[in-house]
Amino acid sequence: MNIAVAQLNFHIGNFEGNVKKMLEAVETAKKQGADLICFSELTTCGYPPRDFLEFDDFIDLAEKAVATLAKASHDIAIIVGSPSRNPVIEGKDLFNSAYFLHEGEIKAVQHKTLLPTYDVFDEYRYFEPASEWNIVEFKGKRIAMTVCEDIWNIGNENPLYKICPMDELMPQNPDFIVNLSASPFSYIHHDSRKHVVDANIKRYGIPLFYVNHIGAQTELVFDGGSLVVSPNGKLHDELPYFEECIRTYSLGDVVKGEKDGSQENTKMALIHDAIVLGIKDYFGKLGFKKAIIGLSGGIDSAVTTVLAARALGNENVRVVLMPSQYSSDHSVKDAEDLAKNLGLEYDIVPVKSVYESYMDLLKPQFEGLAFNVTEENLQARIRGMILMAMSNKFGHIVLNTSNKSEAAVGYGTLYGDMCGGLSVIGDVYKTEVFELAEYMNKDGEVIPVNTITKPPSAELRPNQKDSDSLPEYDVLDAVLFQYIEKRQGPKELIEMGFDEKLVKRVLRLVNINEFKRVQTAPVIRVSSKAFGMGRRMPIVGKYLS
Amino acid sequence: MNIAVAQLNFHIGNFEGNVKKMLEAVETAKKQGADLICFSELTTCGYPPRDFLEFDDFIDLAEKAVATLAKASHDIAIIVGSPSRNPVIEGKDLFNSAYFLHEGEIKAVQHKTLLPTYDVFDEYRYFEPASEWNIVEFKGKRIAMTVCEDIWNIGNENPLYKICPMDELMPQNPDFIVNLSASPFSYIHHDSRKHVVDANIKRYGIPLFYVNHIGAQTELVFDGGSLVVSPNGKLHDELPYFEECIRTYSLGDVVKGEKDGSQENTKMALIHDAIVLGIKDYFGKLGFKKAIIGLSGGIDSAVTTVLAARALGNENVRVVLMPSQYSSDHSVKDAEDLAKNLGLEYDIVPVKSVYESYMDLLKPQFEGLAFNVTEENLQARIRGMILMAMSNKFGHIVLNTSNKSEAAVGYGTLYGDMCGGLSVIGDVYKTEVFELAEYMNKDGEVIPVNTITKPPSAELRPNQKDSDSLPEYDVLDAVLFQYIEKRQGPKELIEMGFDEKLVKRVLRLVNINEFKRVQTAPVIRVSSKAFGMGRRMPIVGKYLS
Repeated sequence: MNIAVAQLNFHIGNFEGNVKKMLEAVETAKKQGADLICFSELTTCGYPPRDFLEFDDFIDLAEKAVATLAKASHDIAIIVGSPSRNPVIEGKDLFNSAYFLHEGEIKAVQHKTLLPTYDVFDEYRYFEPASEWNIVEFKGKRIAMTVCEDIWNIGNENPLYKICPMDELMPQNPDFIVNLSASPFSYIHHDSRKHVVDANIKRYGIPLFYVNHIGAQTELVFDGGSLVVSPNGKLHDELPYFEECIRTYSLGDVVKGEKDGSQENTKMALIHDAIVLGIKDYFGKLGFKKAIIGLSGGIDSAVTTVLAARALGNENVRVVLMPSQYSSDHSVKDAEDLAKNLGLEYDIVPVKSVYESYMDLLKPQFEGLAFNVTEENLQARIRGMILMAMSNKFGHIVLNTSNKSEAAVGYGTLYGDMCGGLSVIGDVYKTEVFELAEYMNKDGEVIPVNTITKPPSAELRPNQKDSDSLPEYDVLDAVLFQYIEKRQGPKELIEMGFDEKLVKRVLRLVNINEFKRVQTAPVIRVSSKAFGMGRRMPIVGKYLS
Repeated sequence: MNIAVAQLNFHIGNFEGNVKKMLEAVETAKKQGADLICFSELTTCGYPPRDFLEFDDFIDLAEKAVATLAKASHDIAIIVGSPSRNPVIEGKDLFNSAYFLHEGEIKAVQHKTLLPTYDVFDEYRYFEPASEWNIVEFKGKRIAMTVCEDIWNIGNENPLYKICPMDELMPQNPDFIVNLSASPFSYIHHDSRKHVVDANIKRYGIPLFYVNHIGAQTELVFDGGSLVVSPNGKLHDELPYFEECIRTYSLGDVVKGEKDGSQENTKMALIHDAIVLGIKDYFGKLGFKKAIIGLSGGIDSAVTTVLAARALGNENVRVVLMPSQYSSDHSVKDAEDLAKNLGLEYDIVPVKSVYESYMDLLKPQFEGLAFNVTEENLQARIRGMILMAMSNKFGHIVLNTSNKSEAAVGYGTLYGDMCGGLSVIGDVYKTEVFELAEYMNKDGEVIPVNTITKPPSAELRPNQKDSDSLPEYDVLDAVLFQYIEKRQGPKELIEMGFDEKLVKRVLRLVNINEFKRVQTAPVIRVSSKAFGMGRRMPIVGKYLS
């Protein structure tokens, strides 16, 4: 039997487009000689469909999509993920299902059992878990259909669920496992994925076809990297990352286990490619082409600009240099150098005149009061407004340039440098932004060296440096990583050797700045814990604050 | 036996403050002759604690809080809600528990079974459901402890769960039910609450003590209205709304069922009081005192200002009138009239000079291009920046004045009139804003009559009216209500008699403006479906858009 793995990029709610793409894939798979084609999780409606699932009309459209696909299942069988209605009145109204389509009909449906409800996942919000498990017979083989998380409850020290769906299916003697996934990228996720697939092979000893989404849905990036694994544990094939791909495998060859198709990665290459895809799909799926970015001469906006140019093409990125009276000479030069390196359209729009008109206007209110954060924020906000005005006039999307370190501690101005439709590097700590810049420069200077080597500064008052008001970034980022990604509390952090005063200060800054983060753009997620939908914190809380 | 119901206002993560408040309540209850005092759900840590629950340190503090309360349980028993650790390795790490404290010890713990995971609730994100149910014996009585949702799975046409915890407890012959709740307000919620309590009494025929939170936690308002119900179905007492209250009841009297303590409400009174508490607690719990609001002369900012003044005191509300060249004369007069009616500090800061300095600055870019939404947004954003500058300088929080209708269809400017720390009327449709204004004026003019009677206008271009670009509000709001609150799709709406073109246009506007709503301030929730944490929509979706 020949089995096609179809790792494709879907668009949430775009049933017509998604079905068209799957029908084309069916034709490709047939040409590749496939008897069976496997798509990933919830491909009719895209993933995650979120509260669209609460609309009857939306589920009707998903059912129609499955019916259309079923009609194409004559010379080939199709496994596809789609929501299905729960006929039992008690419990949630829907299941997250794998459909087996053949001979023009729905031959079998297996629901998802383990419903991730943590971090960015809300599946128990919508779905009832499966309570029945059945293999599917096809051309003399017995197929165990599982959906994503269903194979993730083994090999963990702290299992999240009490059931293991493959344990339920094994007594029916399946010949192989198909797993329909929509497993979002993080720069460590490919390791977890291989670990869990490995644990399944060890326990069940049958081939596994792990079919993942690729493509970005606002903050979530799906990296693909679908896996075909032999019963002896060898990775028969690993599909490319961040690309659509349809490949057909002989089940016999997979069973033999003679091939090793594993890929090499580095953290920075993965982060780079994930963000590029994140930008590309955000624009493409919203129907936009052009981005506009405020370029300061600093490293954050430089890295953001390069990522945007790689995602959208240099001709679709416009940058605006907006020096104030506190900007250093090298800032404008560094920014111009980058724009020239990339051949970008750029404008120089100094903010001083507008700044002065605000100060004139507010003189009656501010008379006699000292320069403080107000005037700093004002500069940042004027820049934000200029970008927004240009985006309104010319149809760009403003890209946000904040990094994760500053988003964490609130070192940014709401409605100023925190504005924009999408946060490009908001899940990349400042120390990682430097690494990313080095990675970008590996084949020659793209980002001006001076942008990388000079000390970070917001340049909102004379001779300002980030280190005036923040700890050095290597220390700050280490604390943030432990607190945010690793969920270590103050006690654990102090035990690790971090200074107690510093720990308390940093954790307090993170917690009191939640009000800023709730108002910022969605952040392209590249780590295992990003700000946004996956980290839900009270605003009026009084914990560590 | 005398039972005290303690309906109190807690602060998320403020263990010290919460415990202190409960210890004082214990003393009050003792003075009232109580043998038992009942608190609401998760009172040690406040509700909802959200992802703070993922920190070991946070759970340690909750356990310490329970231990401290246990020490105070010598002459009185205490029922209190707090998270507890799951000793079983499989499943979620925590339970949402009711503790029974007496004689200085934890005598019993009953976990919550039904974990709401819909709308604003994420409980299965954190908690494992109970799988054991035990009554507690105390002074010859048998108590069934339940937590919030545990009593909500009966009497529904479409039950969300397969289990009914009280059905599990009834074979143990409980004498009465205590329900620890944290049930957020909506203007119809008191009806649902009474309906469900009624269904429980009919089915189980024993007294019920329903203990709810009061107080606001950013977007969620808890209205109190705790209930004591007799076995004959009579509402023995209903505690006040939006106020702390501790009352002690003789169980014998409750059993007799001779009293009827139900309260009267009106929708507008409830919405008004909920928002006032929402503002008050947002400021109080964050440690702020003063609000600043942009006053346009229109109804939204007028209603917001009155609500703020009632929450914070007139002396703590500063308003800023920011006319542009497109503002009508009556706008300034209407705004001034309101400020004078309330005796508020106000500033007049015309935006024209700053607007012109932006237009001068951007002349090279905008030369020859027509006035469009860019220039409209610019005016709104200058106003936002002036408010933010004043708030930075003087320590105010900017209150957002957007209503639900405009938030729905994107009729607002990001970083302009959509700025602010808290959205006060963002869950109130425009037609309801008018009703709220009438309600405020019921005992004499507070909001100038002209503000109520003139046609709504953004005044961002000459002679602009909202109805130039939007359907009339009564039609718009009717469609929005069906789509947002009732989750009716296009087919159902057209069947209801709404014009097809209008329906498609409105639904499209709602869906394509999700990118704006994700960046706005938290909205005080007063309806059964507010924008924000309870409505989770894709941004790059292509559904009805």
